[in-house]
Amino acid sequence: MKKPESLKKADIIKRIFQQKLPTESYHEKGLAFAPTNIALCKYWGKRNAELNLPMTSSLSIALPEKGAMTSIVFQDKPYDTVILNDEVLAADSGFVQRCVQFLDLFRLEKKWYVKIDIKMNIPVASGLASSACGFASLVLALKDLFNWQLSNRDLSILSRLGSGSAARSLWMGFVEWHAGLTKDGMDCFATPLEIEWPELYIGILALTDKEKKISSREAMQRTVDGSILYNSWPKKVARDLVIIRQALNVKNFALLGGTAESNALTMHATMLSCWPPICYSLPETLAAMQKIWVLRQEGLEVYFTQDAGPHLKLIFLEKDKEQVKTQFPQVEIIRLFD
Amino acid sequence: MKKPESLKKADIIKRIFQQKLPTESYHEKGLAFAPTNIALCKYWGKRNAELNLPMTSSLSIALPEKGAMTSIVFQDKPYDTVILNDEVLAADSGFVQRCVQFLDLFRLEKKWYVKIDIKMNIPVASGLASSACGFASLVLALKDLFNWQLSNRDLSILSRLGSGSAARSLWMGFVEWHAGLTKDGMDCFATPLEIEWPELYIGILALTDKEKKISSREAMQRTVDGSILYNSWPKKVARDLVIIRQALNVKNFALLGGTAESNALTMHATMLSCWPPICYSLPETLAAMQKIWVLRQEGLEVYFTQDAGPHLKLIFLEKDKEQVKTQFPQVEIIRLFD
Repeated sequence: MKKPESLKKADIIKRIFQQKLPTESYHEKGLAFAPTNIALCKYWGKRNAELNLPMTSSLSIALPEKGAMTSIVFQDKPYDTVILNDEVLAADSGFVQRCVQFLDLFRLEKKWYVKIDIKMNIPVASGLASSACGFASLVLALKDLFNWQLSNRDLSILSRLGSGSAARSLWMGFVEWHAGLTKDGMDCFATPLEIEWPELYIGILALTDKEKKISSREAMQRTVDGSILYNSWPKKVARDLVIIRQALNVKNFALLGGTAESNALTMHATMLSCWPPICYSLPETLAAMQKIWVLRQEGLEVYFTQDAGPHLKLIFLEKDKEQVKTQFPQVEIIRLFD
Repeated sequence: MKKPESLKKADIIKRIFQQKLPTESYHEKGLAFAPTNIALCKYWGKRNAELNLPMTSSLSIALPEKGAMTSIVFQDKPYDTVILNDEVLAADSGFVQRCVQFLDLFRLEKKWYVKIDIKMNIPVASGLASSACGFASLVLALKDLFNWQLSNRDLSILSRLGSGSAARSLWMGFVEWHAGLTKDGMDCFATPLEIEWPELYIGILALTDKEKKISSREAMQRTVDGSILYNSWPKKVARDLVIIRQALNVKNFALLGGTAESNALTMHATMLSCWPPICYSLPETLAAMQKIWVLRQEGLEVYFTQDAGPHLKLIFLEKDKEQVKTQFPQVEIIRLFD
């Protein structure tokens, strides 16, 4: 028997657009914003690297005013231009190449080139989900440009093809990204949760402005391939997702915070067991964690989560906003709900 | 059917001494030294807490001039006295109670009391295996005092009843502590490896003089009970032991160093997944690790291991002694073989 050829991103584009060309109608300009998102239950590890299909489901909260605003206009040059925060990126930079490859998915018969102008108000490539909001806003800007009539489900799948966690960056509030089961990943998309929690706050504790040395893409692949601890990760996520959903439903803050913190620590723990080890934490990260653990023992209800970078994101309630600010003067406090 | 009663330490003492009283003959004084040991493949987690039977085997290297010198003399008071580094310890201190309970195992018919004088040239209770060399030297001093005619195997078992890793502190050089399979742990003792490696050095990088907040005894129990990552630990140890034995046999330093470092990081990783998390590292620990990773990238062959405390133990070869000293001026370099 012939081994079936593995699916490519282009096959998924065909399924989503069916008989239509994705570029048959267009406006002059596409413009869209997508918020960054902070996972309370992390995405770490892929079951399919080409299609960005994750090993597990994950659950995030959007940061309403933090993210990427992307505009796209056609240009008369025989190449694409990517501008990030008013700086034209080199054509051979990793981010430009990822953008161009993504655009290529939609350049089927007719050739066209664009100028993509992205404004991000979060540090780039430092574990603050810049590629998530970047690709989600790019998909939404393309939707605007080409007047796509697509469901949120399809937009989530398209965003995922650009960057896994971009699947979650299309909504405000809590969002769950479903791992799905099928090989083509047509059941692998995010949906928003119908839960609001106006008292819940996030504080961004940026601890360095250096770019990270190892991309999350590479780190998660190395973890899946080489960490003996990784095989416990799907069990951890399955357990934590049930607990987090429950904590959100009943507004049990300690349960939410503790589960999110433990989930993040376990993700980073799996990386320590790679060889060479992967460690996103800096001494400043550990100092901040230890301060949080002491504060919590003293009665302040503050938890943290950490992504593929050295920064921490504090999780706390409105009532403790002032105390968090006093303890961490450099924190940037984000209100999650209006 | 009646559930068989679980074995107590006293049952093991009876098996070892058979028909004889452990105290039927005695000298005026017992005196012995036992070296501390640094595990290259760690002991983390018990299958039997009463008998200190470990989940896995482990492998260590002794530090020849670091350890505990213990003297025991009888005293005419109706209690035991424990002196540690010239200071009389309070009767209700944890260490005194462990010593008294250990002595009680040998006080069967006749009552006698002793003054135990321990001199340790390593920081106490900070992850430098003070309880390992402490209990091993206590057993050897008791052997001297009571003129025990026991095999090294039995002495290793007795030491283990005092503190798990003390089973390994009876020898210089490389020592393997066998997990064993039996319920009574009579097959759970250490044996020395017939390997010398004169070029191998250890550097103690003490990073604080604070006592640790959580004992390794408590931390390992919490890890076994509550860390979802722990179930991968026995697999990691099984793999690492094979590699380390092989590295010792063929004197492959990179293989030894890398495996020991990965083993330690994985042990600490399992603790991060407890709730509340257990983290022995301080910011200084992480800073030192990162310095080591950078130095290694630059070509200096230095690895580390870490026990239940914030200190690191550097592993390197004689040829790099001066460079290690230059990079870490506070390091205490230990020659392992004469």
